[in-house]
Amino acid sequence: MTIQRTDKVLQVSKLNPNVVNVEYAVRGELAIRAEQLKEQLASTPGSLPFKTITNCNIGNPQQLEQKPITFFRQVASLVDYPDLLKPENAQITSQLFKPDAVDRARTLLAAMGGSSGAYSHSKGIPLIRKHVADFIEERDGYPANPEHIFLTAGASPGVQLVLQTLIQNSNVGIMIPIPQYPLYTASIALFNGKAVPYYLDESAETFGLDIVELKRSIQEARNSGVDVRALCVINPGNPTGQVLTEESMKDIIRFCHEEKLVLLADEVYQTNIYLSTLPFHSFKKVLKSLGPAYEGLELISFNSVSKGMVGECGRRGGYFECTGVSDDIIDMFYKVASVSLCPPVQGQVMVDLTVRPPKKGDPSYPEYRAEIDAIYESLKRRATKLAAAFNSLEGVICPPAQGAMYLFPRIVLPQGAIDAAQKAGKQPDALYCMEMLNATGVCMVPGSGFCQREGTWHFRSTFLPPENQLDSFIDSVAHFHNSFVKKYSN
Amino acid sequence: MTIQRTDKVLQVSKLNPNVVNVEYAVRGELAIRAEQLKEQLASTPGSLPFKTITNCNIGNPQQLEQKPITFFRQVASLVDYPDLLKPENAQITSQLFKPDAVDRARTLLAAMGGSSGAYSHSKGIPLIRKHVADFIEERDGYPANPEHIFLTAGASPGVQLVLQTLIQNSNVGIMIPIPQYPLYTASIALFNGKAVPYYLDESAETFGLDIVELKRSIQEARNSGVDVRALCVINPGNPTGQVLTEESMKDIIRFCHEEKLVLLADEVYQTNIYLSTLPFHSFKKVLKSLGPAYEGLELISFNSVSKGMVGECGRRGGYFECTGVSDDIIDMFYKVASVSLCPPVQGQVMVDLTVRPPKKGDPSYPEYRAEIDAIYESLKRRATKLAAAFNSLEGVICPPAQGAMYLFPRIVLPQGAIDAAQKAGKQPDALYCMEMLNATGVCMVPGSGFCQREGTWHFRSTFLPPENQLDSFIDSVAHFHNSFVKKYSN
Repeated sequence: MTIQRTDKVLQVSKLNPNVVNVEYAVRGELAIRAEQLKEQLASTPGSLPFKTITNCNIGNPQQLEQKPITFFRQVASLVDYPDLLKPENAQITSQLFKPDAVDRARTLLAAMGGSSGAYSHSKGIPLIRKHVADFIEERDGYPANPEHIFLTAGASPGVQLVLQTLIQNSNVGIMIPIPQYPLYTASIALFNGKAVPYYLDESAETFGLDIVELKRSIQEARNSGVDVRALCVINPGNPTGQVLTEESMKDIIRFCHEEKLVLLADEVYQTNIYLSTLPFHSFKKVLKSLGPAYEGLELISFNSVSKGMVGECGRRGGYFECTGVSDDIIDMFYKVASVSLCPPVQGQVMVDLTVRPPKKGDPSYPEYRAEIDAIYESLKRRATKLAAAFNSLEGVICPPAQGAMYLFPRIVLPQGAIDAAQKAGKQPDALYCMEMLNATGVCMVPGSGFCQREGTWHFRSTFLPPENQLDSFIDSVAHFHNSFVKKYSN
Repeated sequence: MTIQRTDKVLQVSKLNPNVVNVEYAVRGELAIRAEQLKEQLASTPGSLPFKTITNCNIGNPQQLEQKPITFFRQVASLVDYPDLLKPENAQITSQLFKPDAVDRARTLLAAMGGSSGAYSHSKGIPLIRKHVADFIEERDGYPANPEHIFLTAGASPGVQLVLQTLIQNSNVGIMIPIPQYPLYTASIALFNGKAVPYYLDESAETFGLDIVELKRSIQEARNSGVDVRALCVINPGNPTGQVLTEESMKDIIRFCHEEKLVLLADEVYQTNIYLSTLPFHSFKKVLKSLGPAYEGLELISFNSVSKGMVGECGRRGGYFECTGVSDDIIDMFYKVASVSLCPPVQGQVMVDLTVRPPKKGDPSYPEYRAEIDAIYESLKRRATKLAAAFNSLEGVICPPAQGAMYLFPRIVLPQGAIDAAQKAGKQPDALYCMEMLNATGVCMVPGSGFCQREGTWHFRSTFLPPENQLDSFIDSVAHFHNSFVKKYSN
């Protein structure tokens, strides 16, 4: 296992410095330690003070026992093994698969030329892009063009493709929220641009997006010579879970218009909405509602099958829609997409199912509705319960989740912990999360992994642990928290 | 559809110049024209002098009616819809699925924690990496370490990840064969390195790899100040289909050792081997056979489920193995892989099936064996027949395919065609391929898309058209060729 380091061509000091500089906390030190502990539990059961690793570091619902939607998987299964659709198998398969699943599988197979094993168009299967356009039209009430839609292997590769294309040189700035989802800092670092931070306004209620702060941020960047070209907004927020009001979105659009910025809207949590007073609005709809004056604004919005009630992370499906973007730019995106040939066809199938689920009257509708509603209601209950539990801990303030899959509580850490962290060369909240992992098997991500206002500490936890394990999960975290505070308060 | 260009933030002149400079011929002008013609055939049948588009521009077997392997798809289908594995469905599913497919699906589901909808480890599911290591050990007779293996979304993203990490600055050179698969020039351009071409030696028999040419190439690059760090070899070759002898591979390894180069071995066609006198050897095996003196050489080898007899391009599955690469470099690869979260789980499943197919005695073995053999024999027949057909055309010289899925004939074009191409601002072989597409619906890629020795012209055609359509395919290409020669010879 120990490889001699002498005389190697590949040395870290001789790699792409952008790669060396990338940090990616969601899958960083804590996630690696969690994998080690998982292996230890498997090889030496009973050797740790807990029985399982609970991965709250990443929004990965099916890792934590969320069941996939039956209709979706029936279609996927039929598309994978089309022999099931042969007439001689009809009688048997009719006992296992709903007729609308069979119909959908046939439609999709025809749209992919007969086999899910073939590369598709690099932008994705045309019929599925058409269905995405239909979905967007129905959601927003404004037309959508399939030629302006790219299917992707989840939202992340879409974001990376767009940022890679946009970042002309190392002086190009991309505005990103702080706290942010680390995909953004990682991608901007990989493509050697400048992340221009704007701070979300933390209060007990939420992390608001304030136009004054946007102006401060861009002004400061421009004053130091940065060529700011785009603004990223995550709505609902990640890691912060806030949902933007329509008014706030209008302000953002006007800001982008005035400042000549491309608006990059990460809308992957658009169905993870928990307050009826704060519904989701797409940036596309709000932009169109502002009329012709803003028609020219360039907006690229991202969606994914990994989130929502679907939670199909493993299939790597998603899309982005370009609004107001010139055709020659779309051609550039297409060229970059082509180098990786095509998005995974199984992910594309899941995009189709997500944007065109069973409708009232369809044989699969009642089951589909019941499954989606059950997941939704359970997420909402877990969000509420977990936020209350965090708020009951000493020195923890947790805003309620308005959307997404995360809570992002602020923690006031004892000075002893801050000192200990400094000694260990760690951020205090990273120390907190590492000790939690080692004591409980619960893996969260420290606020420092998302960036945060200096001198404040947080952690991000999904609220995805299964509902029947939530009480013991909460007990275990609370027990750790109290011990940690005690340990470092002396 | 026409979007005003004035006042846009996104303009081609203000994008990442590496993106703007990328060329990607396999999915370039000809592929786009083929898509247009396909749409025209769908919307206005009978409006063109042919009934279908035959995509010979890309190795995409299942697009051209190749049937997937039954065992593979049975497992995939069960993994997608695990309800089929429930005890109450056992009697029904036993009529549709072989017992070893059921067993494998259970094993894989357990290895992924119960659902293919969850993100996996960013390097890929540990058990599948273990199976890849077992496969490599059995193939080569030398140990392989699962921790040095990354599952990827096909070989292309793996190659891109490695090149992105290796290219420290714009002066770093990567040696690539000419003719080359355009993934290499495209990726090197995207990450702003320097492609250092070495020419394969074209003869009537093959495109040989000559050590003298490697030395000339690296010397020339180094003389002009390029910092050459790696050598890419594609074996079996793409677009040229040659298979390297063991002796030639030893020369290449010694060359990399002496010149301090990382060896990047694209071995995705390792089972597409058509001459018993030229079997496939992996670079790993040949390297290990050379003993301790070469132990330190850094080798990264790529494989894919898209090629071979498997042909599962749409699932995006593949892997790369690092040999002699330091752990801290592997950690860098891991970090980059993490930003895209994980390779598609359905692609990972196909990697597992490809490296661990049914064995003699397994219920699915006879069908598996028969299917693989039938595809293999048919590919071999088609390769031979198509090469003979090309050789019978005036001014065409086509070496036989030793491996891969492509023929790469040289064409001597009439001066009239060269003049016409020059007028149209096209390469002569691009003109040839475009006229062929417009006349016959057959889409090939001109040699200029892969680079070639100046003043020579080629086209690359897969030999994947279905066997029962091969005669009419050949007739149609021959008829076009004769008309083309006639048209431009006056």
